[in-house]
Amino acid sequence: MKIGRQAHRASAISTSSADVIVVRGKDLCKELIGQVSFTDHFWLLLTGNLPTPAQRLVLDATLVAIAEHGLVPSVQAARMTYAAAPEALQGAVAAGILGCGSVILGASADAGVLLADVVTRSATVPLRDAAAAAVGELRAAKRPIPGYGHPLHKGEDPRATRLFEVATQAGLGDQHRAAARMVQELLPELTGKALVMNVSAAIPAVLLDAGFPVGALKGVPILARTASLVAHLLEEQLKPVGFVLSHAGSQAVGYDGVVPPGFTAEKS
Amino acid sequence: MKIGRQAHRASAISTSSADVIVVRGKDLCKELIGQVSFTDHFWLLLTGNLPTPAQRLVLDATLVAIAEHGLVPSVQAARMTYAAAPEALQGAVAAGILGCGSVILGASADAGVLLADVVTRSATVPLRDAAAAAVGELRAAKRPIPGYGHPLHKGEDPRATRLFEVATQAGLGDQHRAAARMVQELLPELTGKALVMNVSAAIPAVLLDAGFPVGALKGVPILARTASLVAHLLEEQLKPVGFVLSHAGSQAVGYDGVVPPGFTAEKS
Amino acid sequence: MKIGRQAHRASAISTSSADVIVVRGKDLCKELIGQVSFTDHFWLLLTGNLPTPAQRLVLDATLVAIAEHGLVPSVQAARMTYAAAPEALQGAVAAGILGCGSVILGASADAGVLLADVVTRSATVPLRDAAAAAVGELRAAKRPIPGYGHPLHKGEDPRATRLFEVATQAGLGDQHRAAARMVQELLPELTGKALVMNVSAAIPAVLLDAGFPVGALKGVPILARTASLVAHLLEEQLKPVGFVLSHAGSQAVGYDGVVPPGFTAEKS
Amino acid sequence: MKIGRQAHRASAISTSSADVIVVRGKDLCKELIGQVSFTDHFWLLLTGNLPTPAQRLVLDATLVAIAEHGLVPSVQAARMTYAAAPEALQGAVAAGILGCGSVILGASADAGVLLADVVTRSATVPLRDAAAAAVGELRAAKRPIPGYGHPLHKGEDPRATRLFEVATQAGLGDQHRAAARMVQELLPELTGKALVMNVSAAIPAVLLDAGFPVGALKGVPILARTASLVAHLLEEQLKPVGFVLSHAGSQAVGYDGVVPPGFTAEKS
Repeated sequence: MKIGRQAHRASAISTSSADVIVVRGKDLCKELIGQVSFTDHFWLLLTGNLPTPAQRLVLDATLVAIAEHGLVPSVQAARMTYAAAPEALQGAVAAGILGCGSVILGASADAGVLLADVVTRSATVPLRDAAAAAVGELRAAKRPIPGYGHPLHKGEDPRATRLFEVATQAGLGDQHRAAARMVQELLPELTGKALVMNVSAAIPAVLLDAGFPVGALKGVPILARTASLVAHLLEEQLKPVGFVLSHAGSQAVGYDGVVPPGFTAEKS
Repeated sequence: MKIGRQAHRASAISTSSADVIVVRGKDLCKELIGQVSFTDHFWLLLTGNLPTPAQRLVLDATLVAIAEHGLVPSVQAARMTYAAAPEALQGAVAAGILGCGSVILGASADAGVLLADVVTRSATVPLRDAAAAAVGELRAAKRPIPGYGHPLHKGEDPRATRLFEVATQAGLGDQHRAAARMVQELLPELTGKALVMNVSAAIPAVLLDAGFPVGALKGVPILARTASLVAHLLEEQLKPVGFVLSHAGSQAVGYDGVVPPGFTAEKS
Repeated sequence: MKIGRQAHRASAISTSSADVIVVRGKDLCKELIGQVSFTDHFWLLLTGNLPTPAQRLVLDATLVAIAEHGLVPSVQAARMTYAAAPEALQGAVAAGILGCGSVILGASADAGVLLADVVTRSATVPLRDAAAAAVGELRAAKRPIPGYGHPLHKGEDPRATRLFEVATQAGLGDQHRAAARMVQELLPELTGKALVMNVSAAIPAVLLDAGFPVGALKGVPILARTASLVAHLLEEQLKPVGFVLSHAGSQAVGYDGVVPPGFTAEKS
Repeated sequence: MKIGRQAHRASAISTSSADVIVVRGKDLCKELIGQVSFTDHFWLLLTGNLPTPAQRLVLDATLVAIAEHGLVPSVQAARMTYAAAPEALQGAVAAGILGCGSVILGASADAGVLLADVVTRSATVPLRDAAAAAVGELRAAKRPIPGYGHPLHKGEDPRATRLFEVATQAGLGDQHRAAARMVQELLPELTGKALVMNVSAAIPAVLLDAGFPVGALKGVPILARTASLVAHLLEEQLKPVGFVLSHAGSQAVGYDGVVPPGFTAEKS
């Protein structure tokens, strides 16, 4: 079945012959393996160009910042899945990645769209007005302001602060960081709540200042968490807790439906 | 429901307070963000220690080597999935990762187990005998020899050759590389086929020589391909081919079942 | 880490003792196994009550209607994934389900929200005005009208027609079917295109007329396609085409990036 | 890239024209929708034939038996995933399905292979010897005996007992049920443990006695659990517990790694 127009029929990422693998115009074996870092390669795959040192520094910093934060829901989903299906590590990683969604890790991408919108608007109006307008539209649509507030880090999110320092040291322009700060400044007035910028606003702020493509922002926490998921699944092989997690979960949630006549629940 | 003994109830990867996030004993913000590369961080997450320069070089090389090889099945699955469900980039990445299995990318892990087995056996018998015994057991169990042969690269796999060069330049020991070469040397005699080592044998050879944990080998192509999948999904947003791929697939496979009386297929 | 308020801590679906498994208040072994159909059980799991014969008839009809439509993208993703990772059938099914998204099969749920909206509005204004207003809001927000048009079935979608017949035979009320017909009638005038109702509008129309919960509509194509995916993966074991599909896909999409000096692509 | 021989290039499951959708040789709209149950359709998709009443009864019974068992790991993974990524119900279902693995629900398929093996061997030796030989081979390979024992149901698994009753009432032959009983009888002697047959042995026993294809056994719990997952995700929309589950899990698992100087964990 043919779906859509299908006018475009090419990819610009890789081609190969029996002897040469080309990635983004470069000979993989002669120009990349052993010569560029994995972070360089990720930037190259996305953009077609190797990063500058400043771009590499900022991308490394964001990937390191977001990779690991303990037994978050996606890690628990992955470890339970691996305990149940140890034949397929890829399935457990996939289960963990599926939890990188709009509520948990996807906020980075949504915050990036907001910050890019503020920067675009600020070409014609003062930054404060641009931020107020962009936030106002989200509020009017009853949508959350992505990238502000955190369940654990009630004050400053230390990862956000550190990422801004790294971007400043790298000498990047700061249009998107300024937009992120302005949104934070306006939030008490616009929403009645003093929410602090979290890592999900800081990541797009520093990456967009580095020229990272906005459409790939959602991939940054996904790639970072994949590294962490592999580490947790290695630990799960050696010191399993997957069924400890699910047992604790099942103990924490009761049953509030009806039961048949004569049924007696046991202590488990 | 309680499954298993659940004696162990701890993880050693991360903890945090309101102010500090600890990853493998280090303060994430003060000691890691902006100071280590993502590849360093992956090694740290897996092993509890930052890599040496030689270890980092080899890990980067393997991740770069295996990240991208064009429109392989897992990339096609991801791009079709994204075309059908653009609201969930994480789902399209997950669909791609699910294709990192025993036949396609999982061979790295299987080959690693083989090479580690050969090295262990070679403590007490000559390497040739160790390799012959390990391969012989796979043959007896009618299991394939993982890491040798490739549908496209019939001669030398250029990525394998390059990874060996990098490992040598890094000054690593070469026990597992020697085992990989010995298996290749013996294959014509043991199997009747002159299969050449591919990237899936070279990756574990150089990583195990660097001290990488064998239980995490399967995670290397998964992490590497995640970077590539994000790049393909960014391209899919800008220049979509997901439904081109599925249309071509459906044209290549006919229908050989029965049809109801009077049914006439149309050209599509 | 504690996320959200967590005030509610119970589920009403199932509980058990060592002797009795309770599902929605019923003794699984004494009251359900061998006595109700899987379709009955699905309705019970969702709503807490067994369906009436009319409800069962309509739910069966929708599941049968949407289960299978040949080598659609999600089936191709699943078959390629299984070819690459035959150790994990669950992973191949998951890859297929991930393609039940907003563009392909999720339209059922979106169309259900539209039809429910039209019915709600029609409590206070004539149906024509209710439908025009609901469609108008989608148009104003530049969102597609879900459930109308089909790449293959340009005229009437025969599955939609048949589902409406079944619902009429079942003696259900027809508020949502009337809403679906009214939207179709208005589309030429409101959009300039005469798009015909497809199966994704017919499914929610008949299910909502039967009292099916709107929040579970997205699960109907997912459950139905799971049955089909299992059948395709059984066929893939016996007569594999997974790599035929991916080969055809890779042949249909060229490379339009740059190449290194001297690189020559081969015929593949 | 061309992988494998690709000699076969057809599927026998479905084809269509603009007017007619053919599924397994039948006109979907005229012969199936509104006339067969979803369970009938699943059997048809798998085998090419509609089931007999006895076959339908047994397949319905197994799907009902295995669909739901409370907050099992795969349900928890799905509910956490949905809480984190509510934009993609399909992703949460997929995360749950990924936990249908060799340890948890995949035992049905492994047990089916064992029972089929026992039946095959019993063509030439007494059933007791056939069962002893098949179990002996698993023991020799240090593999578990799939389908016996349960963490909660220490005595008889009531679902297993009930499924056998249903199969007997349906009038099916009982070769595979006899094999399952014989394995149970021999286990104390062969393994030193009196493990009772659980639902994962009963499901393949009754389905294989009904003529169900052994290669599709793994799909039965997957399809059944998909129904349950959709119900849990509907409940998660209305009465969320996803983050309650993950909070409880994180409280149950401590941190046993090192911490930086001066770090103090807080009560969370």
